[in-house]
Amino acid sequence: MKVSARNALNGKVVSIKEGPVNSEAIVELAGGEQLVAVVTSESAKHLGLESGSQVTALIKAPWVMLMTECDDIRLSARNCLKGKVVSVSDGAVNAEVVLELAGGSRLCAIVTRDAVEELGLESGVDASAVIKASNIILAVPA
Amino acid sequence: MKVSARNALNGKVVSIKEGPVNSEAIVELAGGEQLVAVVTSESAKHLGLESGSQVTALIKAPWVMLMTECDDIRLSARNCLKGKVVSVSDGAVNAEVVLELAGGSRLCAIVTRDAVEELGLESGVDASAVIKASNIILAVPA
Amino acid sequence: MKVSARNALNGKVVSIKEGPVNSEAIVELAGGEQLVAVVTSESAKHLGLESGSQVTALIKAPWVMLMTECDDIRLSARNCLKGKVVSVSDGAVNAEVVLELAGGSRLCAIVTRDAVEELGLESGVDASAVIKASNIILAVPA
Repeated sequence: MKVSARNALNGKVVSIKEGPVNSEAIVELAGGEQLVAVVTSESAKHLGLESGSQVTALIKAPWVMLMTECDDIRLSARNCLKGKVVSVSDGAVNAEVVLELAGGSRLCAIVTRDAVEELGLESGVDASAVIKASNIILAVPA
Repeated sequence: MKVSARNALNGKVVSIKEGPVNSEAIVELAGGEQLVAVVTSESAKHLGLESGSQVTALIKAPWVMLMTECDDIRLSARNCLKGKVVSVSDGAVNAEVVLELAGGSRLCAIVTRDAVEELGLESGVDASAVIKASNIILAVPA
Repeated sequence: MKVSARNALNGKVVSIKEGPVNSEAIVELAGGEQLVAVVTSESAKHLGLESGSQVTALIKAPWVMLMTECDDIRLSARNCLKGKVVSVSDGAVNAEVVLELAGGSRLCAIVTRDAVEELGLESGVDASAVIKASNIILAVPA
């Protein structure tokens, strides 16, 4: 498999909560962080997701929001991963920001250039990556 | 808090509908518009969302779709906000379009340059911003 | 209606599964492919979605992930459409890739330039478009 998604994080399912249409999977990453993914219940069944399943979480870079100075706020987004900026590449409208997470994984986010300026994102700056559970795709070996 | 999301709209929760995995919150913005956000039920509980809660709705610019001449169509997207284009900034592939909503709030959308041309988006043009409920992140003070 | 979404695929609802917050609609495209869309149950009711309804599936280009060499993997994303690249337009950070699906429809994806290089995307290359069910907006005539 080769995917365009800039983020492919390996982990293990630690729990599944099933609903009639959607199910919520909690995935523990190699680096220790936990990710929450919402997938359709049909997918969860079809992929055989259960506690212990090895999965890869795929996250497109534009689905990652970046946040700094986050002590005064709580978010509905279930995934909020602390890290440090390791690179910023500017385009005309967007910029690609790469974060290194505490556990060593790297996360790539596409945000606007205005955001890069406002948040003062540059190599070495602390920032958190925020990802809605519904924007994570889970992959398992065929 | 500083976030990369270009859109941070303040409002008040007016109702919550809970499901086993996801919950739906209806938020009334300062300008009078209503937004519908779908968040996980775990988040709704964790943030203590209930009727009357003050929240900020965070929406990344690429999650906003723009629409013109929309009288002949109805969409599954729960959020369809009328406004007027106030600026367009072109990149190579994408463009950033800022809309002023009826209630005075501004919304930033990233769409392709082809879309800007096809829809004739330029300062002063009427357009609606369409946002899926599942693409809204709610924030509350810590 | 004119929309900024680069992808507007016509089809017919073949089944609906209702949950308390979200519902899942299966849509058969003109070209024979099936798409799964998750919309809120309120929307499904409001649009009168039922087996046989004619709908247009709207998908923003940044919501499409591209994949090659996909024989060794299964994804939670319900929509995985096989096609062939027909064009690639480069920006500074992003690139726009157009795919022709087996059934003849065209799908536009915005991915990073790095992804284009890694996957070797160029005219004539086989690739699959992956779309989460929750990232599809359904439209019906007013």
